[in-house]
Amino acid sequence: MLKEAKARIGRNAILLAMFDGEEELEITRHLDYLSWRYCKGKVGSMELQKIVAAIETAAKRNHVVDGELYREMHALYHAVVEAVQGVTRGQVELGDLMRTVGLRFAVVRGTPYENAAEGEWIAVALYGTIGAPIRGLEHETVGLGINHI
Amino acid sequence: MLKEAKARIGRNAILLAMFDGEEELEITRHLDYLSWRYCKGKVGSMELQKIVAAIETAAKRNHVVDGELYREMHALYHAVVEAVQGVTRGQVELGDLMRTVGLRFAVVRGTPYENAAEGEWIAVALYGTIGAPIRGLEHETVGLGINHI
Amino acid sequence: MLKEAKARIGRNAILLAMFDGEEELEITRHLDYLSWRYCKGKVGSMELQKIVAAIETAAKRNHVVDGELYREMHALYHAVVEAVQGVTRGQVELGDLMRTVGLRFAVVRGTPYENAAEGEWIAVALYGTIGAPIRGLEHETVGLGINHI
Amino acid sequence: MLKEAKARIGRNAILLAMFDGEEELEITRHLDYLSWRYCKGKVGSMELQKIVAAIETAAKRNHVVDGELYREMHALYHAVVEAVQGVTRGQVELGDLMRTVGLRFAVVRGTPYENAAEGEWIAVALYGTIGAPIRGLEHETVGLGINHI
Amino acid sequence: MLKEAKARIGRNAILLAMFDGEEELEITRHLDYLSWRYCKGKVGSMELQKIVAAIETAAKRNHVVDGELYREMHALYHAVVEAVQGVTRGQVELGDLMRTVGLRFAVVRGTPYENAAEGEWIAVALYGTIGAPIRGLEHETVGLGINHI
Amino acid sequence: MLKEAKARIGRNAILLAMFDGEEELEITRHLDYLSWRYCKGKVGSMELQKIVAAIETAAKRNHVVDGELYREMHALYHAVVEAVQGVTRGQVELGDLMRTVGLRFAVVRGTPYENAAEGEWIAVALYGTIGAPIRGLEHETVGLGINHI
Repeated sequence: MLKEAKARIGRNAILLAMFDGEEELEITRHLDYLSWRYCKGKVGSMELQKIVAAIETAAKRNHVVDGELYREMHALYHAVVEAVQGVTRGQVELGDLMRTVGLRFAVVRGTPYENAAEGEWIAVALYGTIGAPIRGLEHETVGLGINHI
Repeated sequence: MLKEAKARIGRNAILLAMFDGEEELEITRHLDYLSWRYCKGKVGSMELQKIVAAIETAAKRNHVVDGELYREMHALYHAVVEAVQGVTRGQVELGDLMRTVGLRFAVVRGTPYENAAEGEWIAVALYGTIGAPIRGLEHETVGLGINHI
Repeated sequence: MLKEAKARIGRNAILLAMFDGEEELEITRHLDYLSWRYCKGKVGSMELQKIVAAIETAAKRNHVVDGELYREMHALYHAVVEAVQGVTRGQVELGDLMRTVGLRFAVVRGTPYENAAEGEWIAVALYGTIGAPIRGLEHETVGLGINHI
Repeated sequence: MLKEAKARIGRNAILLAMFDGEEELEITRHLDYLSWRYCKGKVGSMELQKIVAAIETAAKRNHVVDGELYREMHALYHAVVEAVQGVTRGQVELGDLMRTVGLRFAVVRGTPYENAAEGEWIAVALYGTIGAPIRGLEHETVGLGINHI
Repeated sequence: MLKEAKARIGRNAILLAMFDGEEELEITRHLDYLSWRYCKGKVGSMELQKIVAAIETAAKRNHVVDGELYREMHALYHAVVEAVQGVTRGQVELGDLMRTVGLRFAVVRGTPYENAAEGEWIAVALYGTIGAPIRGLEHETVGLGINHI
Repeated sequence: MLKEAKARIGRNAILLAMFDGEEELEITRHLDYLSWRYCKGKVGSMELQKIVAAIETAAKRNHVVDGELYREMHALYHAVVEAVQGVTRGQVELGDLMRTVGLRFAVVRGTPYENAAEGEWIAVALYGTIGAPIRGLEHETVGLGINHI
C-alpha cells in the first residue's frame, strides 16, 4: 500500500519540479526529513537526448543513483523515458517536429510503500513549457515516470 | 508570453487535481480571484472511455465548456487525450494491458497569456494511481493536456 | 517509376472513396478502362475491428483479393491498418477513446508502376467523419494504405 | 452539423493538394467563392522538421494564419502533426527510418459547420510519395489534419 | 558486463519459448545448472489482457516472482509489455485490429551480469503466430522484454 | 498452413541471428538444404538509419532481394521496420533517447507455407544488446519482422 499523501514519491517529485523559493524549501525540508535522496535542475533543448543526459548526469552527480551500476541506471532511464512521454504526449520527438522545451526536472528516490519489502523506488518529474522555437509560442507541459530501483 | 507562475493554467490544474483540504481551497480561491472556470472530480476504471466520459460530463455540468458547441468539446477532447498519454506513458490502454487507474481530475479554463488576443485556453490535469487490478499493486501517475478553446 | 497522375493507385482510391454520383462514375469508368479491380463501401462504428472486417469482406466478395490466399489477405490487412492510422492520427483506437467514425472506403488493386516487373499493388482509402458519439460533433478524416500484393 | 460535400474543409484541402491545372482551378475558384483562406505548396525532405516549417511558413506568408498569435500557430501545428501521421503511418519519422517524402500540401481555413457559432476551422492536407531515398522506389501517401482555430 | 552467450538471460528465454523436446531439455538443464528460476507456458487469444494474465499467473505459480510484492510484479509487468510490443510491432492491440495470437512464453529470472552487484533480472520471451482469426492465415512473431528485479 | 518447426522462416532467422560457430552452421546447412536464400551481418549504431541501411545493403549484395525492384525493397523495408520495433519496444528511436544498439541480423527468404501458392516470404531477425552509450550498461534485445515478397 502506498503511504499517505505527504510520503508519496510522485507528488513530491512533481512539487519539487514545479515549486520555487519558500514552497520549494518546504518540499526539500520534507524530503530531508524522510531521508530520501533527490536532485533538481533545469534543461532546455530541441534535442531529447540532451534532456535525458541532463537528468542522468544530475542524478549521478547528486548520488541519487550509482552511475556504475546498470540496474540503477536502467531504472532511472525508464523513469526518464516515461516522464518524457507525458511531456511530448504522443510523439516522443522535439526538434524533428519543430518544437522545443524548457524544463525543470526533479529526481526523487525513496520508499513510498508501507511494506518495507517494497524497497526503494525512483520518480522523475518534469515541468515546464513546450512549443515552437520562438519565444512565447509555448504552453506548459508535465511528465512523471516512476520505477522500482 | 505566459503570465507568471500563479496565473499558469497547467500549474493550477495540476495542483487542483493533486491537493485536498486547505491546500485545495487556496487554489480554488485563487482561480475564483482570476475569474477562471474550473471543475474537479474522481474516476477509477479499467476502461479509458469511462475516464474520458467522466471528465467530459463534469466539464459540461460545471459549465467549464459548452456541450452543444463542437469546437469547445473538440478542444476539451484533445486536452483529455493528451493528459491520458501522460498517465499511460506509451500505450494508451488500460484494461487491454491488465491495468487500472484511480484518478482525480481537474479542468481549468482561463487566459494564461499576457496578450489578451491569445484568448481562452483549457487545461486537463490527472493525478492518481495506475497498476494491476489488485489493491496496493500500483504507483502514482500524472498527466496534463492543454489546448486553445 | 510511378505512372502519371491518372494511373496512380492511391489517388484513384482516395477519389473513389470521396466522390459520389457523376464524379464517382468518372473514376470507376477510368478504373475499368485500366482493367484494375476495385470495390467501395460504407461502414460506421466505434469498434475498429468492424471497420477492418467490413473492408476485408467487401474486398473478398468483390474478388479484389483472394480470401483463401494468406499473402493476399496479409497485403490487404497491412494496407487497411495503415489507412486506419491516417484516420485515427496517433492512437489506433475508437471506442476506447470515446469516438466513433462514419467512413466510406475504397479498395483498388492495379499496376501503378511503369515497370511491369513491379507487378500488382493494393490501395485502401478511407474518407468520412470522426468524432464524439453525438450527431454533429465530428470532423472529416482521411487515410490511405498502400502495399505490394 | 457539417455543411454538404462542396463546403467540406477536409475534402477541399485534399483535392487542392492533389489536383493540378484545370481541376485545381475549380477548387480554388470554389474556395474563393466561399471566401475561405487557403494556400498550397510543395516540399520534399528526409527531415520532418522541414515539412513542418514549409507548411507553417506558407500559411503565415499567405495570411492563412497570424504568425504572431500563438493560438493560431498552435491550431495549425496540431493539424500539421495529424496530417503527418497519415503520411508516416505509425512511426512519425522519415530520415531516421531511411525514407524520404515528396509532398504537395494545402492549408484551408474556413467555416465548415452549419452553426455559425462553430466558427473557423483549419485543415492541412498532404499528398505525394514516400519511399527509399532512391528515385522511383516510392509509393503514394496522404494525410489530413483538422483543428478548430 | 553481460556474461558469455550461454549465460545470457534473453537468449535462454527465447530458446526456452521456441524449443520443444530434446532441445528444450537442453535449455532447462542449463538453467537448472545456473540455478536460475524459470517457467514456460502456452496462451492463445484475441485479447491482450489474457496474454498478460497467463504469463503473470504462470510466473507467480512457479515462484519465478513473488505475487505479493509489487516491485516484483512491476518488473515482470513491464517485461511482459515490452515482449508484447515485439509481437504486435506498432499497435499494441489484437482483437481491436482483428488479429489473434497463439504464443508460447517463457519467463526466466537470473543473474546475467559478471558484476554480482547488478543482481537479478527477469526476461519474458514470446514465440508463436499472429494473424487473422482464421486457421492458417498467420505468420510467426517474437518478443522479448528484460527488466531488473 | 505453416510448415513444421524446422521449415519456419522466423525461427530460422532468429536462430541464424543468435547462433555462432557449429550451431550457426547447422542452421545454414538446413537453409541450404531448403534452397532458401539468406544473409547475416553485424551492425552497431546510435542511428536507426544505419541499422536499416546495413540490412538493406547486405540483403541486396547477397541477392536475398533484388535492389532494382521496388516491390522487393518495399517488402524488405517493412520487415526491417517491424523487427526494429521489437528491438526498441515502444519508441522507434535510439540516439534521440540516448541509447545505442549492437546487433546481429539475419535475413531469410523462403517458402514457409504448405500451400505453394503462398509463394515467397521474407524474415528479418535482430539479436543483440541495447543500452546506454557506455560499455556494459546494456541488456539483450530481439526483433522479428515477416512479410510476403
